[in-house]
Amino acid sequence: MRLSQTVQGTDFAFSFHLPTLIEFGYGRASRLGERLQHLGVTNVFVVTDKGVEAAGLLNGLVGSLQSAGIAFDLYTEVEPDPGLETIDRGAAVFRAKPYDCLVAVGGGSPIDAAKGMRVVASCGGSIADYAGVNRVPAAPAVPLVAVPTTSGTGSEVTMFGVYSDWHNHVKVTVTSPHMAPTIALVDPALTVSLPAKMTAASGIDALAHGIETFFSVRSRPASDALAMEAIAAVNAHLRRAVHDGSDVEARIGMSHGSLLAGMAFTNGFLGLAHAIGSALSGHCHVPHGIAIGLLLPHVVAFNAPARPDKAAQLARLLGVEANPREERGEEASAAVARMVADIGLPTRLRDVGVPEEKLPAIAKDAFKSGMMTCNPRQPTEQEVRELLRRAF
Amino acid sequence: MRLSQTVQGTDFAFSFHLPTLIEFGYGRASRLGERLQHLGVTNVFVVTDKGVEAAGLLNGLVGSLQSAGIAFDLYTEVEPDPGLETIDRGAAVFRAKPYDCLVAVGGGSPIDAAKGMRVVASCGGSIADYAGVNRVPAAPAVPLVAVPTTSGTGSEVTMFGVYSDWHNHVKVTVTSPHMAPTIALVDPALTVSLPAKMTAASGIDALAHGIETFFSVRSRPASDALAMEAIAAVNAHLRRAVHDGSDVEARIGMSHGSLLAGMAFTNGFLGLAHAIGSALSGHCHVPHGIAIGLLLPHVVAFNAPARPDKAAQLARLLGVEANPREERGEEASAAVARMVADIGLPTRLRDVGVPEEKLPAIAKDAFKSGMMTCNPRQPTEQEVRELLRRAF
Repeated sequence: MRLSQTVQGTDFAFSFHLPTLIEFGYGRASRLGERLQHLGVTNVFVVTDKGVEAAGLLNGLVGSLQSAGIAFDLYTEVEPDPGLETIDRGAAVFRAKPYDCLVAVGGGSPIDAAKGMRVVASCGGSIADYAGVNRVPAAPAVPLVAVPTTSGTGSEVTMFGVYSDWHNHVKVTVTSPHMAPTIALVDPALTVSLPAKMTAASGIDALAHGIETFFSVRSRPASDALAMEAIAAVNAHLRRAVHDGSDVEARIGMSHGSLLAGMAFTNGFLGLAHAIGSALSGHCHVPHGIAIGLLLPHVVAFNAPARPDKAAQLARLLGVEANPREERGEEASAAVARMVADIGLPTRLRDVGVPEEKLPAIAKDAFKSGMMTCNPRQPTEQEVRELLRRAF
Repeated sequence: MRLSQTVQGTDFAFSFHLPTLIEFGYGRASRLGERLQHLGVTNVFVVTDKGVEAAGLLNGLVGSLQSAGIAFDLYTEVEPDPGLETIDRGAAVFRAKPYDCLVAVGGGSPIDAAKGMRVVASCGGSIADYAGVNRVPAAPAVPLVAVPTTSGTGSEVTMFGVYSDWHNHVKVTVTSPHMAPTIALVDPALTVSLPAKMTAASGIDALAHGIETFFSVRSRPASDALAMEAIAAVNAHLRRAVHDGSDVEARIGMSHGSLLAGMAFTNGFLGLAHAIGSALSGHCHVPHGIAIGLLLPHVVAFNAPARPDKAAQLARLLGVEANPREERGEEASAAVARMVADIGLPTRLRDVGVPEEKLPAIAKDAFKSGMMTCNPRQPTEQEVRELLRRAF
């Protein structure tokens, strides 16, 4: 018998919400036009970025819209880690024509951008007005179809949008079920051309989503169940996808693992690796996935004593079951570290240009993240500094 | 490492949809009024039945509506296995006043009834017009809050409604995401007074939902993950809930297991036990849960050879791991049979008044069910007759 959590007393309470319709299948993006016809859509605002366009990933989608006789405009003005102004500007462009659907194509940046633009176009004001939890007043009327081209963010199914406030050097998060896409159209074929480095960085983020939500104080059996499948899927496929991008089964496994992790963490939330990672990216411009890869092994080691059962389960999911139970947390941490190294990501902060003297400021800012409150073991600032020093 | 299904080739495709917002917590139903105020609701149509009313289960809910200053009417005219006419009649009553919300309180019958009434009130015609898959044209504007008082149907989160066509002696199923409740308010406190017999019959149905969807050809890792948690939760709590109805933790575990099973099977669908069960209930008026309990051990034994890995996993979830792998299917079947006996449900068709000469007709009608197509091993009519004879 396997129960990820047992009922004790009457405190066993939770919410679970996953409003996005998920449609998963290799090659499915080339049927986008048909799918939108079915929804009665006639005029689409496609939010993407120049990298996606240059990689030729829009060709199939655009052809399918044309075949279906659906009008569309491409909006490619989304930068990495999009700023608040980008969202407001895109919303204004969207409102200027009678579009009846948004389609977001890309990694987390275009998908998060489209989520924000849709809310601003529908509810008015600036995306900054909706920062925080449950501050979007109503569901937008126009549907949003999210089409991921990486396997990592899970943004295609989450209720989060993360934006850069360039003036204040912080990230702003909008959390609301009204942010969740209407449809997640997940086509692993779109990830086959993703370079190894981006496959690795986005893939370790997916693994972190699975692990962090599994250890989160907000986790419940439904999110645990999805997180465990996600961890197992990423563990089985990430090395293969990095080492041979044309390994279609590995790409499918990663698209699926990343999706399952998104389904889990939109309900169970994240933890310490993402809290510190956010501060690290803010201070030193370390790309998100790389920051997460640098921190995750240390965070697993730090959290294991607080959740020994889950640490043991994590070790098993990562393929290390042989050792005595009390060592499983360390083994899980080592397994994550091996994964980071095997897929060619940096393993030390010093190797990505983080100056040692910045560690205290990063440690301090980690506590600004709401994700810190979901971590199963509350660190002191001193403990975060020590963790960063171990990662240095 | 644990993967419930491995990716092979490019055929790994699926849809997943769970639009209902789930709010789970002991005592939460007594905050219904507050919750509806939040939604801006002012006038509620409460769909329930006379049994729920007589058991006093409406008191807390009604008090909470009154405290919140929300107007409401109770509609108690829902019979067990509600007929098509019941739905159309209820929809007409609903439409006659400016209600802005439906609340369904009860087992599967009132919840299924309210789902159907909401669709008819919004889309017109008769519920019979929407029989089949995806025939409801649009999402109803008025929200539906489902408040289960049993732990079994999972109807609070599924996209199904099952109705009796009394003229043609068949069950009619309406399948559409627009049938899914807006909110599932799952309060295990409402199940504490449920008599042992009803706890057993509804609980075995929840177990069957978990098992049948786990073996379904439509299952995918996301539904498997939820199904496994559901099976483990029911296995851990059903005997306790039957033997001591005041065991609050067992009640919470069963409400939770039943909910997880619903989340799973609305995506993975069901199989042979429900296909035969439907015919059995139709021919001999055996109550649904009892029919399922009679059939489930035999269906598990029949299906195990078609899914040996899952049969072994099921055995483990039911607490029987000691035996050699190839015997695990039989062991799982025996474990289900022990559960049926332990909770005091009938174990032979002859004991519930099924005449032996009706078995061929039941076997024949089992093939009218769409759920048959999801079973992992397609039986011949002869094989279903043999299965029924073993269950006799």
